Amino acid sequence: MKLKDLCIILLISPLWMPSSTVLSAQENVDEFFIKNIYDHSLQHSQCYTWLSHLSEDIGGRLAGSPGAAAAVEYTRQVMSEQGFDTVKLQPCAVPHWVRGDTEIVKIVNSDSIGTVSLSATSLGNSIGTGPAGITGEVIEVMSLDELMALDPAAVAGKIVFFNRPMDPTQLHTFRAYGGAVDQRGSGPAVASSMGAIAAIVRSMTTKTDDVPHTGVTVFSDEDKLIPALAISTLAADRLSALMQYEDVKLYVENHCELREENKSYNVIGEITGSQYPDEIILVGGHLDSWDIGGGAHDDGAGCVHSIQSMVTLLELGYQPQRTWRCVMFMNEENGLGGALAYAAESNKRGEYHMAAIESDAGGFTPRALAVGGDKDIFEQKFAAVRAWRDMLSSYGVELTPGGGGADINPLKSQQGLLFGLRPDSQRYFDYHHTALDKIDAVNQRELELGAAAMASLVYLLDKYGIDGE
Amino acid sequence: MKLKDLCIILLISPLWMPSSTVLSAQENVDEFFIKNIYDHSLQHSQCYTWLSHLSEDIGGRLAGSPGAAAAVEYTRQVMSEQGFDTVKLQPCAVPHWVRGDTEIVKIVNSDSIGTVSLSATSLGNSIGTGPAGITGEVIEVMSLDELMALDPAAVAGKIVFFNRPMDPTQLHTFRAYGGAVDQRGSGPAVASSMGAIAAIVRSMTTKTDDVPHTGVTVFSDEDKLIPALAISTLAADRLSALMQYEDVKLYVENHCELREENKSYNVIGEITGSQYPDEIILVGGHLDSWDIGGGAHDDGAGCVHSIQSMVTLLELGYQPQRTWRCVMFMNEENGLGGALAYAAESNKRGEYHMAAIESDAGGFTPRALAVGGDKDIFEQKFAAVRAWRDMLSSYGVELTPGGGGADINPLKSQQGLLFGLRPDSQRYFDYHHTALDKIDAVNQRELELGAAAMASLVYLLDKYGIDGE
Repeated sequence: MKLKDLCIILLISPLWMPSSTVLSAQENVDEFFIKNIYDHSLQHSQCYTWLSHLSEDIGGRLAGSPGAAAAVEYTRQVMSEQGFDTVKLQPCAVPHWVRGDTEIVKIVNSDSIGTVSLSATSLGNSIGTGPAGITGEVIEVMSLDELMALDPAAVAGKIVFFNRPMDPTQLHTFRAYGGAVDQRGSGPAVASSMGAIAAIVRSMTTKTDDVPHTGVTVFSDEDKLIPALAISTLAADRLSALMQYEDVKLYVENHCELREENKSYNVIGEITGSQYPDEIILVGGHLDSWDIGGGAHDDGAGCVHSIQSMVTLLELGYQPQRTWRCVMFMNEENGLGGALAYAAESNKRGEYHMAAIESDAGGFTPRALAVGGDKDIFEQKFAAVRAWRDMLSSYGVELTPGGGGADINPLKSQQGLLFGLRPDSQRYFDYHHTALDKIDAVNQRELELGAAAMASLVYLLDKYGIDGE
Repeated sequence: MKLKDLCIILLISPLWMPSSTVLSAQENVDEFFIKNIYDHSLQHSQCYTWLSHLSEDIGGRLAGSPGAAAAVEYTRQVMSEQGFDTVKLQPCAVPHWVRGDTEIVKIVNSDSIGTVSLSATSLGNSIGTGPAGITGEVIEVMSLDELMALDPAAVAGKIVFFNRPMDPTQLHTFRAYGGAVDQRGSGPAVASSMGAIAAIVRSMTTKTDDVPHTGVTVFSDEDKLIPALAISTLAADRLSALMQYEDVKLYVENHCELREENKSYNVIGEITGSQYPDEIILVGGHLDSWDIGGGAHDDGAGCVHSIQSMVTLLELGYQPQRTWRCVMFMNEENGLGGALAYAAESNKRGEYHMAAIESDAGGFTPRALAVGGDKDIFEQKFAAVRAWRDMLSSYGVELTPGGGGADINPLKSQQGLLFGLRPDSQRYFDYHHTALDKIDAVNQRELELGAAAMASLVYLLDKYGIDGE
């Protein structure tokens, strides 16, 4: 069957088939089309090439940085060349944090092992110590609760070391991350409020190695800013072991700066739907990344997944009935400025995102599409989607409750469904927020399969909707 | 609950519970125990350390080589230290093929690009050209059928180049391999029968890179042996493209030798069952590998999966009711000598392998345990296993028909079930039979999850059996 013939069948099948056979005939057509999506994706995808450019030629894309600006322009060009009706830039304000050059954490007073450097990386929003550095005694805690239970006098003037590991028994590593990341996100602010002069956090990974993992830490306007750095899990184990035997002082030096707020952009490709232009289907990832790697899995993969999923459908001759948006969100990592700007403008216009699909969990083999939404509409709308379960599961992709994503969650009030692509998560935190998050950590087929899963869902959403019209 | 208490419940639960509640109570106990297996596996496994020793310190383990002998002794020691009742070596004969040092394939007569070296590796059982090398014109074919349809006069004196790619649209890459590997396995012999002086085969991978993939090629006693080598996919594409424009001659040089048959061993750890000692549960992988890498995924992973699965259960205090065997099969890659010796001795003794589980598809995240067996018993025995489906699928492991493995298939006549661990296959053929098949291609958690899946199955098989006793 030629593609053109298939498209004709797709368009006319509900009209001419007796109703008792419509479902099975449609299913066959859909199975056939989804097979085409996968075949095309595994043979003709460009997503790996795009990702290679994003993560290697452009590299780190921290919001406010020249890399982020280059990524905005690059993805604007890619979408413009790939058949979107319009590609526009949507302004948003972003913080402009700069790491600086030197980052030092070292043990300076050990009787037993002398001066020892620990692999470290500053956390986003950390201030710098400046060239003089700071030296202080270390106290180790395993949780924010443990810290807050201490007498502030015992914390004042010290360096607080948060050392609770991610739980290795969590099958889904994002749950282990969720169970530990409060130390990085909130720990330094709490330490500061108790008079600490700096905070050191065990890297967020289940792997034992010497690679430090950066990521955001958050101070409120009331907090005194202090230097905050992550050290590798090997370094954390070493430091902790030494502290069993002797009091330890650390020398910390970094040169971070929080500069004036900067302007950046979401990049939005759009195709207007032929039948239901007011029902929007969004796919997206975030274009910014941390600065120390190439942001290949986080979240270059999600960006190229998103573009590729729509391009695949266009290349197969599919004509959108609903309006498609492909959104490269800016600054997921440090404040969600892009996502908030997007939702605000969308709400102001009274738009309806029937479905939003985010990919922000890496470019690994897809295992599930997790579905979420406002509780008032979820059961009813999920029922429509659930009917597609077998078609997706035959490609190893389950439809499970629990979806969404940081960039699309602000759209929940529009009462559509929110989907998160869930790739296999075992390797994600080997690379997340590190210098290793480069193209060679991405397998091309695994990446392409993620785009194929998203394309299959966009196809079904576009063809059938979820509102029973 | 302490482990000891759990074991008591496991032993007594079928006796004291009213029958109507037995199933659900048992399921709870089983779910609890399987959770323990996973938790233990992700925290206390040694399989990654063992695999690191096998693939890095010992390295390549081609049957008949010193590396294979070292691997026999190493795994014998590991199993002896890990609580098996007995560990014995079972002799088997193995071919002793030696690669030799230099391997050259180069284009020597091109007007347009001059002399060009192509990344190449000899195939197992290839003879060597010797230091003089051979030079010949190339003819490209896409299949054995295409070759056999040619006039032998057009083949005689030439070098046959098999260039059909693996099908990238196969979701399961082993199917793509199965659809292309006849060129490597049988192509050189067919080429020889038509008078070819050498054979060159496109590497068995869907990846486009410059890494050549070795593997066995088979000649019968009637065939004239000829040099047979694989070239990388990039080299194959380049050679093929050039042949569109001009006649190409290749210079081929290698120094392989087929030496006298050698003696080697399967390594067999055993624990005698307390209740049903005549019902054997086997787990196994193959200890030999190709010589050019470390055999990390193929099949060091399967070896350490197998040992770890049983060690995990022993460390959790589980007492085997049936007889457990952990078998490191020798020489899967070049003749199945170990597997055939094992089955022959087992059949001679009238043994019954109630279940055999093979891991020979890499150390990636497990996706399924595929179940097979003789058609006369399959449906009935699979029904017992199918009842465990939900317990395994909650760990992302499906129970599907279609199992077995090269080393355990000879046991089929004993009328038990044959299982094959099926990890995610997307990356496998990036490494398979190459110099890249090293420990750094293995993710520790993914490896551990494979061992956990096998341990869970061994636990259920041991506790419940499949024969309705």
